[in-house]
Amino acid sequence: MKIALGQLNVQSGNIVANIESMKAMIQEAKAKNADIIVFPEMAISGYFLQDKWTDSEFVAFCQSQNETIKGLSDGIGIIWGNVSPMYGGQRFVGHDGRPARFNSAFFAFNQQWVPRPNAAWGQYVKHLLPDYRVFDDTRFFIDGITLSAWTNEDICEPFEFEKDGQTTKISLQVCEDLWDHDYSFSPTQKAIEYQSDLIINISSSPWTRNKEFSRIKQLVKHHEKFAGKMPPFVYVNAVGMQNNGKTVVVFDGNSTLYDRKGVRVDGCNDRFESECKIVDTQDEIKDESVTKNKLLLALLCGIKEFDRQVFPFKPNWLIGVSGGMDSSISAALLSMALGSERIIGINMSTKYNAEITKNNAQILCQRLKIRYLASDIEAMVDSTLLTMKKFGYPEPYASLTVENIQARLRGHCLSTISSIEKAIIINNANKVETALGYCTLYGDTIGALAPLGDCTKMQLAQLGREINEYFEKEIIPENLLPIVGDGEISWQFAPSAELKDAQIDPMKWGYHDWLIQKLTEYPGFQVEKLMEDYLSGNIFETEAGRFMKFYGLDDPQKFIDDLLWVLNSIQNSVYKRIQMPPIIMVSRGSFGQDYRESQVRFQYSDKFNDLKSQIINKTGEKHAL
Amino acid sequence: MKIALGQLNVQSGNIVANIESMKAMIQEAKAKNADIIVFPEMAISGYFLQDKWTDSEFVAFCQSQNETIKGLSDGIGIIWGNVSPMYGGQRFVGHDGRPARFNSAFFAFNQQWVPRPNAAWGQYVKHLLPDYRVFDDTRFFIDGITLSAWTNEDICEPFEFEKDGQTTKISLQVCEDLWDHDYSFSPTQKAIEYQSDLIINISSSPWTRNKEFSRIKQLVKHHEKFAGKMPPFVYVNAVGMQNNGKTVVVFDGNSTLYDRKGVRVDGCNDRFESECKIVDTQDEIKDESVTKNKLLLALLCGIKEFDRQVFPFKPNWLIGVSGGMDSSISAALLSMALGSERIIGINMSTKYNAEITKNNAQILCQRLKIRYLASDIEAMVDSTLLTMKKFGYPEPYASLTVENIQARLRGHCLSTISSIEKAIIINNANKVETALGYCTLYGDTIGALAPLGDCTKMQLAQLGREINEYFEKEIIPENLLPIVGDGEISWQFAPSAELKDAQIDPMKWGYHDWLIQKLTEYPGFQVEKLMEDYLSGNIFETEAGRFMKFYGLDDPQKFIDDLLWVLNSIQNSVYKRIQMPPIIMVSRGSFGQDYRESQVRFQYSDKFNDLKSQIINKTGEKHAL
Repeated sequence: MKIALGQLNVQSGNIVANIESMKAMIQEAKAKNADIIVFPEMAISGYFLQDKWTDSEFVAFCQSQNETIKGLSDGIGIIWGNVSPMYGGQRFVGHDGRPARFNSAFFAFNQQWVPRPNAAWGQYVKHLLPDYRVFDDTRFFIDGITLSAWTNEDICEPFEFEKDGQTTKISLQVCEDLWDHDYSFSPTQKAIEYQSDLIINISSSPWTRNKEFSRIKQLVKHHEKFAGKMPPFVYVNAVGMQNNGKTVVVFDGNSTLYDRKGVRVDGCNDRFESECKIVDTQDEIKDESVTKNKLLLALLCGIKEFDRQVFPFKPNWLIGVSGGMDSSISAALLSMALGSERIIGINMSTKYNAEITKNNAQILCQRLKIRYLASDIEAMVDSTLLTMKKFGYPEPYASLTVENIQARLRGHCLSTISSIEKAIIINNANKVETALGYCTLYGDTIGALAPLGDCTKMQLAQLGREINEYFEKEIIPENLLPIVGDGEISWQFAPSAELKDAQIDPMKWGYHDWLIQKLTEYPGFQVEKLMEDYLSGNIFETEAGRFMKFYGLDDPQKFIDDLLWVLNSIQNSVYKRIQMPPIIMVSRGSFGQDYRESQVRFQYSDKFNDLKSQIINKTGEKHAL
Repeated sequence: MKIALGQLNVQSGNIVANIESMKAMIQEAKAKNADIIVFPEMAISGYFLQDKWTDSEFVAFCQSQNETIKGLSDGIGIIWGNVSPMYGGQRFVGHDGRPARFNSAFFAFNQQWVPRPNAAWGQYVKHLLPDYRVFDDTRFFIDGITLSAWTNEDICEPFEFEKDGQTTKISLQVCEDLWDHDYSFSPTQKAIEYQSDLIINISSSPWTRNKEFSRIKQLVKHHEKFAGKMPPFVYVNAVGMQNNGKTVVVFDGNSTLYDRKGVRVDGCNDRFESECKIVDTQDEIKDESVTKNKLLLALLCGIKEFDRQVFPFKPNWLIGVSGGMDSSISAALLSMALGSERIIGINMSTKYNAEITKNNAQILCQRLKIRYLASDIEAMVDSTLLTMKKFGYPEPYASLTVENIQARLRGHCLSTISSIEKAIIINNANKVETALGYCTLYGDTIGALAPLGDCTKMQLAQLGREINEYFEKEIIPENLLPIVGDGEISWQFAPSAELKDAQIDPMKWGYHDWLIQKLTEYPGFQVEKLMEDYLSGNIFETEAGRFMKFYGLDDPQKFIDDLLWVLNSIQNSVYKRIQMPPIIMVSRGSFGQDYRESQVRFQYSDKFNDLKSQIINKTGEKHAL
């Protein structure tokens, strides 16, 4: 059977564009004599739409497009994802009385819904609804398990696709249905029980670091569990960008046909790019090359699609280039994603900025061929001091006040240029600064998008090297990148906000990066575990532990002081994150709608306080640890 | 039976404070010989904690406090809400394999868990989990219906409370369990079937406009349904403030004992204030006075508790007082909630500010006895223009650019004073401006809290009048309040941002207020309905319709132009709302975590476009409508 993998760039809310893209791919698949074409989950509507799902007219509008797609199914089976307020033509109300909506896979052939003996024709409903991290499926949709109970049908029943005198039993799945190993219900097991000839999973599965490996693991587990019984498996994922307000989500595609052994036969690119690829269940295994630089590609996709979908008028983008590592990486990403001619680098200096970083900034813009504007902003600093005096606040001020004035005036400056140029501002914050609140609200926190906000400093250093490899020359100045040795980090120019003399960022790079990842990306990790590992000495056997020694944290009191500083900083800076721009999610715990925070001063647990005492009591026993 | 209604001010995350408050109330209830004391839902942990629920050590810490409370139950039954990772001492995993947590009511007496014949002693689990608006119960908790199936128990079984030789069958409920009329399961019906002597509902039920009436309606419906069979009903609600990041939620209390007829016998205040009140099921009906000015009290509670819980160091608060209505109301609320001595009013003028508004601002601060600082900010405007020239952007600029510069410099000015004073900034935005994005990002959008962000302009005008009544003098200048006639609105000084000459806000007050409420607070309302009502002429029979005529919107083309302006403005300003401060929720659709938005350009439905054409085709038929 020839299957077209319709790896669509789904634009949420843009029904017309999605239908047009689907039409073009259907045309292509027909021309290449595909038997079936498969599109991703929610291909028509988009997947991350927040409370727009409660707009019944919008849902009806999406649903009405099914007829258009069905109408194109002459000679080719078409499978696609869409929202529906109905199942089998019938409306339902949820457990709580609200109108039911279904995250559905539709299946049409020759302008007819594809039949099943004992369940609705042409419509499958997602069974496993994720309700964690960035996902809110249960808020908006009713699952297929519940619906099966209501209708007394088994909605997992396979479809009977009859073409050229042959009937193929095809089980459909939607996204999470594949990830069933922790669930009490297994759609894949159902497919095995029905002896389906083929399983087709349509997904809108966001990419995060190493997600591609987790996906393969799911399939491997199925093969272990159902040894020899797994039919060929088709996985079709979206590409592109969607967002739910605070969190910008990217999709890598990686649509694949797996054979009966669970081995990849062939598939689309996993480079976040739209593609319609014909695969054949009779095919031999094709060569497979694993894409490198996925983080780089993810960020480029996020920027490119955010720009195209949210600001379709091709605006210029502004970036404050300080000459430091993060803004250099941001500038490189912007020019790679959108082209140099739309990017303007702006250096806004005060007396605290070193010549070396200013030069770095200018050279960077030359290398990237982007416009470069520079001026000091001292006049604005002076007028602020003057105005403060008129309000009754003469100098001197605390150092932090002066630092904040500079950072905020840079924000003001960028915003003013943005207004003059009708341009969009990019935010350069990384995840460690964001977590600790090491930033000035309305200063360096501004912008429409924070592409680096889910990457730690260490991950960005790695990304900087990849960018230089990609360009095959030094774009990100090597003198900004850390030299990481065996449990040691050194910098030619240590990261600095340059807001006062001889200022160096207070972060313990390597260790704080690791700790913040642990705290946000691993719901199973609690800080009490870290403290236990510290007490037992196990922590020093890990990569992070070696950095801890480097920073002198094998001193118990120092360790506790630092830990409290980190935890309190995270807690006290929620108010800043609430007002920060959307972040491109590339981890399993991105601040925003992925890792969700209350603005609450949580107390430490009794266990925490007990462990703290135990650790402090070890002071002086540094070598014993 | 004497029941103490423990109307607790629950501070989320502040376990120690909550336990202390509970202890004091238990003491008081014992002294007054109460048989039972009842505390709200999640009294120990707080209810709105976002992903903090996934911190297993935090949950264990909350759970461990149960022993403390149980230990105090000598001679008195204690009922309280808390999270638990267990039911009946046993752990479970959810449908998706994650560790189960239960939103529970606990019941102890004489240091023992209160028994039930066929279900776990001393622990009830919430059955109906809200998963809409600001609520995310299903994200974090397993419901009692599911748990009953797992344990083969009926977790709705009443508790057998034996005291002084008498056994009372008590059914427990948690919050939404009362609101069961749209659900397919009714905990109240279960209580009737078990012939319980008493139903006790513990709640953390946020107050929103008219919520108190909806609550009573729930009970009335139960009495209609179970005519004559309803036992006395005890409702205990929290007071205070909690938040889930973007949305600040307030609780009004209103804990009540209802008799067998559903009539209120007695209860605590509904003024958002902590109280321990002893009621007796034998009591005659007490006099009842309905609290007025609930919106005013809600906002005061929100400000007061936000200040106390989030900024426990008693900082000063800064408010930009323009002399307009909204900032005047904000200033009055701040000084009412926190005392005049902690508030600083700041007037930052440019050449566009009228003398009358500057005077208004100064007089307001005098009346409120708050510090008043004033200066022009022209030097900062000038230095911005100078700096722009140095960046290569000489004047002239578009009017909007100049307006934005002024607004943002006010933000910068407030932020700088905030840094010097270590003070907190209040945001003055109303819901209509917020919806339409009629504000300057990093300018008038700044601040730590937006108390008015869920109130329309018309609601604020009403609130202004209430504040004057409350003070029994003119605090909010009467010349700022609109005069609302029969479908007409006039202003002595029309609302203006005063950022350019003769500037008047473009909002159609009265009509836009109504439309924005409809679009955000009524999930059942779609804009297509409005268009149908316009076509039929029905819209002109409504209050809003009369305002529409006043604004000339009986002209079909004008109506459509205005509607598109409103809808596009809402859609295009999501990026501003993403970066705005938390809003105190007082409606059923507050921007933030209540009414959740994607940053997406949604297309209009075919039906919308069809109705639009029909309406435009009526142009010239104005009188026929």
